[in-house]
Amino acid sequence: MSKGLPKRSEDYSLWYNELVKKADLAENSAVRGCMVIKPYGYSIWEKMQAELDRMFKETGHTNAYFPLFIPKSYLSKEASHVEGFAKECAVVTHYRLKNSEDGSEVIVDPDAKLEEELIVRPTSETVIWSTYKNWIQSYRDLPLLVNQWANVVRWEMRTRLFLRTAEFLWQEGHTAHATKQEAIEETVQMMHVYATFAEQFMALPVVKGVKTENERFAGAEDTYCIEAMMQDGKALQAGTSHFLGQNFAKAFDVKFATKEGKLDFVWGTSWGVSTRLMGALIMAHSDDNGLVLPPKLAPIQVVIVPIYKGEEQLDAISEKAKELMAALRAKGISVKFDNRDTHKPGFKFAEYELKGVPVRIAIGPKDLENNSVEIARRDLLSKQTVSLADVEIGTFVEELLAEIQDSIYQKAKTFQTEHITEVNSWEEFQEVLEKKGGFLSAHWDGTGETEEKIKTLTKATIRCIPLDAKEEAGTCILTGQPSARRVLFAKAY
Amino acid sequence: MSKGLPKRSEDYSLWYNELVKKADLAENSAVRGCMVIKPYGYSIWEKMQAELDRMFKETGHTNAYFPLFIPKSYLSKEASHVEGFAKECAVVTHYRLKNSEDGSEVIVDPDAKLEEELIVRPTSETVIWSTYKNWIQSYRDLPLLVNQWANVVRWEMRTRLFLRTAEFLWQEGHTAHATKQEAIEETVQMMHVYATFAEQFMALPVVKGVKTENERFAGAEDTYCIEAMMQDGKALQAGTSHFLGQNFAKAFDVKFATKEGKLDFVWGTSWGVSTRLMGALIMAHSDDNGLVLPPKLAPIQVVIVPIYKGEEQLDAISEKAKELMAALRAKGISVKFDNRDTHKPGFKFAEYELKGVPVRIAIGPKDLENNSVEIARRDLLSKQTVSLADVEIGTFVEELLAEIQDSIYQKAKTFQTEHITEVNSWEEFQEVLEKKGGFLSAHWDGTGETEEKIKTLTKATIRCIPLDAKEEAGTCILTGQPSARRVLFAKAY
Repeated sequence: MSKGLPKRSEDYSLWYNELVKKADLAENSAVRGCMVIKPYGYSIWEKMQAELDRMFKETGHTNAYFPLFIPKSYLSKEASHVEGFAKECAVVTHYRLKNSEDGSEVIVDPDAKLEEELIVRPTSETVIWSTYKNWIQSYRDLPLLVNQWANVVRWEMRTRLFLRTAEFLWQEGHTAHATKQEAIEETVQMMHVYATFAEQFMALPVVKGVKTENERFAGAEDTYCIEAMMQDGKALQAGTSHFLGQNFAKAFDVKFATKEGKLDFVWGTSWGVSTRLMGALIMAHSDDNGLVLPPKLAPIQVVIVPIYKGEEQLDAISEKAKELMAALRAKGISVKFDNRDTHKPGFKFAEYELKGVPVRIAIGPKDLENNSVEIARRDLLSKQTVSLADVEIGTFVEELLAEIQDSIYQKAKTFQTEHITEVNSWEEFQEVLEKKGGFLSAHWDGTGETEEKIKTLTKATIRCIPLDAKEEAGTCILTGQPSARRVLFAKAY
Repeated sequence: MSKGLPKRSEDYSLWYNELVKKADLAENSAVRGCMVIKPYGYSIWEKMQAELDRMFKETGHTNAYFPLFIPKSYLSKEASHVEGFAKECAVVTHYRLKNSEDGSEVIVDPDAKLEEELIVRPTSETVIWSTYKNWIQSYRDLPLLVNQWANVVRWEMRTRLFLRTAEFLWQEGHTAHATKQEAIEETVQMMHVYATFAEQFMALPVVKGVKTENERFAGAEDTYCIEAMMQDGKALQAGTSHFLGQNFAKAFDVKFATKEGKLDFVWGTSWGVSTRLMGALIMAHSDDNGLVLPPKLAPIQVVIVPIYKGEEQLDAISEKAKELMAALRAKGISVKFDNRDTHKPGFKFAEYELKGVPVRIAIGPKDLENNSVEIARRDLLSKQTVSLADVEIGTFVEELLAEIQDSIYQKAKTFQTEHITEVNSWEEFQEVLEKKGGFLSAHWDGTGETEEKIKTLTKATIRCIPLDAKEEAGTCILTGQPSARRVLFAKAY
């Protein structure tokens, strides 16, 4: 039943890599650091996109599209921004190939050099704020609430499918406001939207918080985030929402006439989630048998597998399967009937387990006799025989899917709760980090130096200052300096 | 009422450029040849995407995502393909910026040079077929029916918003088949899907046909196309579907085990439509007052404008508007109530005309008294007073929208029919092309030389050999050589 997957307990990292490939989610391409998102993986991403897009629109945002390329000089306009992104960007320098003189190969045409090099966008603040300058004149043009779905490129040296790739897909919201207060409210709102999406659709509990200065987005005044916990206890930053202050407005000279007739710089936010969420989804719930998908994001929610000998039995089972499919589809449930005669039921069972289909219905000759079906849950690997005389199958499966969604969430929530540990000394910090992992709730003196030192010593970073952190006098675990509240440390993806 | 738009009759080209900008569809960015698609324009593109995506899925295709970058050597593997695309591609040569030695500017780091240059995809056949090599082993893996929504870059020297931009958005389908026959059927099917979309959603009549060898996609054995006619009589290629033969399979060594146990190269197709369709939509239907949008693609189908003096009247009208909105939304109609008090009704009327909202409902105090509304059609600029006692407003508007959709199509169809002219001599060809424009149905000797000569002399190209062209003996308009059927010539975008 292991489908050749390594066990999580033996090699979590290898387990993840193999699962992503074997479940047909993604693979490495021949282009360094760039992945191919395969159809099954992409269909999960499409479901994520659809829900997020709906949530963005319900909160008043519209989509637009901005250029892939950013002139080198734009990136440089916001000082800390270029500092953060210049080291890992793809640079376009030429615009033509030609045949070499001896005709043996195709080379870059040296005569086709760009006057100014172009950067493939690592994020779009600069190109968008240079555009906003023309869109915003007065308070009447505000707020401007725009999102884009796009590909971005960051030239990472060590890449992993979904978690860290040179090119990835994401959405980036970029909003402009008349007041600081309103921009902060937008920033916080979008963090909550991400948290709601993670918890209600991905079945992924998250901690909401604020980043420290060291971990802040390059160019932001504050970065809000949602931090999720993977099954190996490591943290995964699942979404960020940045309050940009007036930094980009000042860099690109975006001013507006206020109601009172004065000129002022605009306040900005940006926020994004990416195909990284796919990595979080996979790592948070899956097991040694394969993917476990929350029903709300599963491309196929129910698979029906016939168990038969000979055409005649298959015909009778197919009739029954059609009835079931009609009942399930009437409830908006996506269902597949796998009647391939090239594969045995056992093979199919293993395949759908690997691919994380939440519910499997098996129908055999005995079931026909008894007017029953066998219903299996992927998350618990449990089975039950259900008499079709006793239940309306559409309602039954609908309720079962809701129960699975909730159960997957509760399991992850329990794991998260059990793995957030309060520690009060440096020894305890090191011991818990090494032996138990998870998030460490600890006092910290608030300085970047201490944060950096802890990172160097243990590889743990401050994931966030949780929004719900209580005021609590304490002393920094490393320096003993006073601290007013605990922050969350963890090793992270 | 002209909103500062130039008249089509005076300067069609300027009219188009101004309309795209004034209707908030798109604008040029600071990056040469790259456009910004503004929220209103993007919302139309999203409607197009949604319908096309549905049609692709209904014909068995799934979406996936392949890398933005293509190694230079991949592009070169198919000889005619590199010939077609090498001259206009963005080339990534470095992966890092750094501060110059004196710290005054940010420069490309010469130490961060790529071993092999990467091309920003102008189309994805090469990167996709290099991937398919690993996905396809046996006939059981076929057909492979994949589509991707993506951005592509072709370094065009002369660009126009939507029609020809360095970066554009598109979808590209890439399928692999076991037999030549099946691949050809797929190619033809997708051409029909495009034609159906153009005619039923864009209200745009098209001619279906096959390209001549000169106009074929670089790497294809046959290119099928749909050709639309703009109001200035010029042609716009609205979609292409390519039968690739075994060209890319051979270039990337993609073989499969047949049912009979032999090894054979796979047969391929590719097909795409792009944001160019936005240009076609705008140019085909709009008038001197602004956009005319077919209701099926209009982001806002109905706008309600209150005509009032003072709060009290507005309150009463708002009540009525809410009733209407509920009735319209119950029919799935998208409706906006514009109760801004910062703009007068006349301003709003002009704005929604410019933006092509198909139906405008005005409600004034007289209407409240009479239980009526004024309903205006954007396409005909006509108005009527409708008594709400006589009609169910939801049904009335639903039928009106269907009538408008059909009427816009019929108008374009009539224009197209009137502007396809049979010509039988070189003199006639030149005269009709110059004085009337449109598509010229003429005999041609079938050689690339003659085609090229006609293009040089008149700027007219062969748009396609129509699928429904009758066998008809004739003589080439230029050379007098024998010809078996007429082809369509036109000047084109």
